Amino acid sequence: MNTSFEIQPATEADVPTILELIRQLAEFERLSHEVVATEEGLRATLFGARPGAEVVIGRLAGEVVGFALFFPSYSTFLGRPGLYLEDLFVRTKFRGQGYGAQLLGHLARICIERDYGRLEWSVLDWNQRAIDFYKALGAQPMEEWTVFRVTGEALVKLGSSG
Amino acid sequence: MNTSFEIQPATEADVPTILELIRQLAEFERLSHEVVATEEGLRATLFGARPGAEVVIGRLAGEVVGFALFFPSYSTFLGRPGLYLEDLFVRTKFRGQGYGAQLLGHLARICIERDYGRLEWSVLDWNQRAIDFYKALGAQPMEEWTVFRVTGEALVKLGSSG
Repeated sequence: MNTSFEIQPATEADVPTILELIRQLAEFERLSHEVVATEEGLRATLFGARPGAEVVIGRLAGEVVGFALFFPSYSTFLGRPGLYLEDLFVRTKFRGQGYGAQLLGHLARICIERDYGRLEWSVLDWNQRAIDFYKALGAQPMEEWTVFRVTGEALVKLGSSG
Repeated sequence: MNTSFEIQPATEADVPTILELIRQLAEFERLSHEVVATEEGLRATLFGARPGAEVVIGRLAGEVVGFALFFPSYSTFLGRPGLYLEDLFVRTKFRGQGYGAQLLGHLARICIERDYGRLEWSVLDWNQRAIDFYKALGAQPMEEWTVFRVTGEALVKLGSSG
């Protein structure tokens, strides 16, 4: 592990970098067709009056290694907030060198500092390398749960009901 | 559908009701052993200086029918926030009368008003009645994804690494 690796909160100047990393992650996940985010939208929703998520960027001697984007969740069973990690991505050339674990360690420290009860994220079922990596770090797969989503026209339709 | 059904934001005075509904939901989900929430904790984290989630309560002629607890999520692919529904619960005696759909419709309207891109929640795989209900409302199961969680000692250990 190179000791010059640094994880810092992103600033508005990082928006083009963040969008590029989102696109690289989507390409890896074979979901590029779902990306409609724009620099303008990210700027408004991440660095406007009410930021919708926080972003940290990891750099090695100034070069971007990867990023994490997260927001507070809430556990009713624990009766306190948690942290939901929406995106974690390490650029291809930096894989397998411990940077992903460092980013996760950074997020775990944020949880502890803020008294958050848990750290959660979602993994694609075919990404066995990631699954093995996360299990080795002590993460538990919540296999009995499935996320349901309503979006687009179905969301508008649901909103016009009842 | 009784037209006197009303959905309103919860207030601090509703904390005992919210905790009772959380416990009823946990019992239904066979997860009562996971509930460590207290009235004090809910008061501090839901109605303090920085509320960690929003709660709405549905009442019929003043009687509590059910509740929903939710917080903003964020989609990097959409480049804008969404709504994550952590808990949705309708008391046993009010089931099968359309109140769950009314609560979901209310949440969909919140999404549209706030320009949120999606509404999401998690369902236990054995809860076939809920799964059928949600699919009928236009929700899509994200079956290829699994949520991973780090909590308790594993979270502390992860935070002390890297």
